[in-house]
Amino acid sequence: MSANTPPEVPNTPSQQRLQMADIARLAGVSTSTVSRALAGSKLVNEETRTRIMELARSLKYTINIGAQNLRLKQNRTIGVVIPYDSATRQHLSDPFFLSMLGSLADALTEQGFDMLVSRVDAEELDAAAAPFDTGRVIGIVLIGQWRHHDQLNQLAARHVPIVVWGAQLPQQLYCTVGGDNVSGGDLAVSHLLQQGRQRIAFFGDINLPEVGQRYEGYCQALQRAGLAIDPALQVSVAFLPDSGRQAVQELLRRNVRFDAIFAGSDLLAMTAINTLRTQGLEVPRQIAVVGYDDIELSTYFHPPLSTIRQPIRAAGRALVASLLELIEGRPAPSLQLPTQLMVRESSASV
Amino acid sequence: MSANTPPEVPNTPSQQRLQMADIARLAGVSTSTVSRALAGSKLVNEETRTRIMELARSLKYTINIGAQNLRLKQNRTIGVVIPYDSATRQHLSDPFFLSMLGSLADALTEQGFDMLVSRVDAEELDAAAAPFDTGRVIGIVLIGQWRHHDQLNQLAARHVPIVVWGAQLPQQLYCTVGGDNVSGGDLAVSHLLQQGRQRIAFFGDINLPEVGQRYEGYCQALQRAGLAIDPALQVSVAFLPDSGRQAVQELLRRNVRFDAIFAGSDLLAMTAINTLRTQGLEVPRQIAVVGYDDIELSTYFHPPLSTIRQPIRAAGRALVASLLELIEGRPAPSLQLPTQLMVRESSASV
Repeated sequence: MSANTPPEVPNTPSQQRLQMADIARLAGVSTSTVSRALAGSKLVNEETRTRIMELARSLKYTINIGAQNLRLKQNRTIGVVIPYDSATRQHLSDPFFLSMLGSLADALTEQGFDMLVSRVDAEELDAAAAPFDTGRVIGIVLIGQWRHHDQLNQLAARHVPIVVWGAQLPQQLYCTVGGDNVSGGDLAVSHLLQQGRQRIAFFGDINLPEVGQRYEGYCQALQRAGLAIDPALQVSVAFLPDSGRQAVQELLRRNVRFDAIFAGSDLLAMTAINTLRTQGLEVPRQIAVVGYDDIELSTYFHPPLSTIRQPIRAAGRALVASLLELIEGRPAPSLQLPTQLMVRESSASV
Repeated sequence: MSANTPPEVPNTPSQQRLQMADIARLAGVSTSTVSRALAGSKLVNEETRTRIMELARSLKYTINIGAQNLRLKQNRTIGVVIPYDSATRQHLSDPFFLSMLGSLADALTEQGFDMLVSRVDAEELDAAAAPFDTGRVIGIVLIGQWRHHDQLNQLAARHVPIVVWGAQLPQQLYCTVGGDNVSGGDLAVSHLLQQGRQRIAFFGDINLPEVGQRYEGYCQALQRAGLAIDPALQVSVAFLPDSGRQAVQELLRRNVRFDAIFAGSDLLAMTAINTLRTQGLEVPRQIAVVGYDDIELSTYFHPPLSTIRQPIRAAGRALVASLLELIEGRPAPSLQLPTQLMVRESSASV
């Protein structure tokens, strides 16, 4: 992009004069001697001429360094880091993460920035700072906070400009931008209860801060309705393509009665619906399903998927805006974007 | 990632000696005078001392330049450029492009590279070289060749290491990696014919090289079966989220009889199926549908989507491998990856 092509420092006549004066001072000769030497004049002896030519080359380097510094100041590259789970070494295929990557690419393009993408082991989130520490990017967006709140606090403590997509947690030094997960969970479950469902399963790894908060919303809605929390209905699965199938099979194995599923992601919900269908269970007639994220395809899915909408496009812009505040040295308070219930066929009452 | 942290050039004693000899030569004094001056000795007069100190600073710059060059040699960043259509200014939301981005991120991480993502106007594909020209990346992967074969040839002619995901074309100087589009189109249509379909619509912008080749395969299969090509069955639509709906409505408006659709992408196929359903047309009973790409969700879609599989994971690795060949100065012939027919419910015979 053109924004990344810094203007070369022009070698103007006034700069050339400055340079000659510098060479003269450093070589301990007059400016006219330098001028003659650079023109190759025989009036300057060969030793001095060689010395001056070499100095001129050195100073050209200096001027290039100036250009380089200018370039660094004008560095318009933002690092986007996506952790991977070293246990599963999962590929980058979750539609939500991919959409977030697309949304960030768009938001950065709009502002004339490029995006440097790298992946780090989710157990070593502090490695996310490497592109900043080596001067290649002026700030970092980390997608997903995983389990290392402490490492992220350390990065913030040493003033790495970093914004994390994730949940707001107690004792947090770093800036997060994320959806309102507690309210998202509450909205999903309140809706299912309104549709007459009572035995609502929860799919997701509640040790991840965002998923934990969605589960908190789930519990909150059940308690408000005077219903007990049944731990047998909570199935811990990772965000992997096969997890929806695994979760449904685990639930069936437990032989626990359920009439609805609230899944921690749309992919989880879709693969669960697919597995329910192969088991002869109809959605929504027998089992109502609500997902999370509202990825592009949830509208086109059959049955169209009810879900909690995370504003992915606004999220990309908000992450970039908060990061630019930090880079400018201004405070960037953590931000919770509103989540919204999208009612479609998969949770229709029967 | 640690691979991106180049070792700083150590200022070793031998380098310091070298530096002193350089300063002496350039200042026209002896090394011992330099040594004394740098130590602040009063044995050297003030003018000479100032001159030598300044020179030392200049040469320190030179050494830093050396470190910088070393850094450039060890630059382990690859540029990934995704053109956008300036007319529609479409967001980066197509699941195939996003999956390709994910696949490239994974392939590059495996090899210890970072990925610099930028977007360029599809009418100015030559702008894709900017991150290479400014030394920020050592090579470029361009996803999608659009309509500017000429601009890509020019980049190859001036030895920009670039690999393009796209179709192989006549008079092509640059390296492409892509699926076998002609065979993909042929496989899809031969399958639909075998299922007893005769009036097969084609959805996609045939001015894009890849889509044009898929249409070529479509024509090839029809001709082999002795069927005429009906231009009324070809609907030109861009790869946009709403295109499937538009294409179905256009087809209905034309009042042309059709019993199958071969769509140029899975997203197009899925949104088309969705629109057919709202129009009371059943898939596959009334209309059989085959997509293209085999994105993750096509298996979970309902009905599960028959499609032509592009090997996205292998594609990421192949693009990176070819680019590394070019960077090492070795030839990288264009590559066509095999495409495969995935038969699922959406094209079942009735």
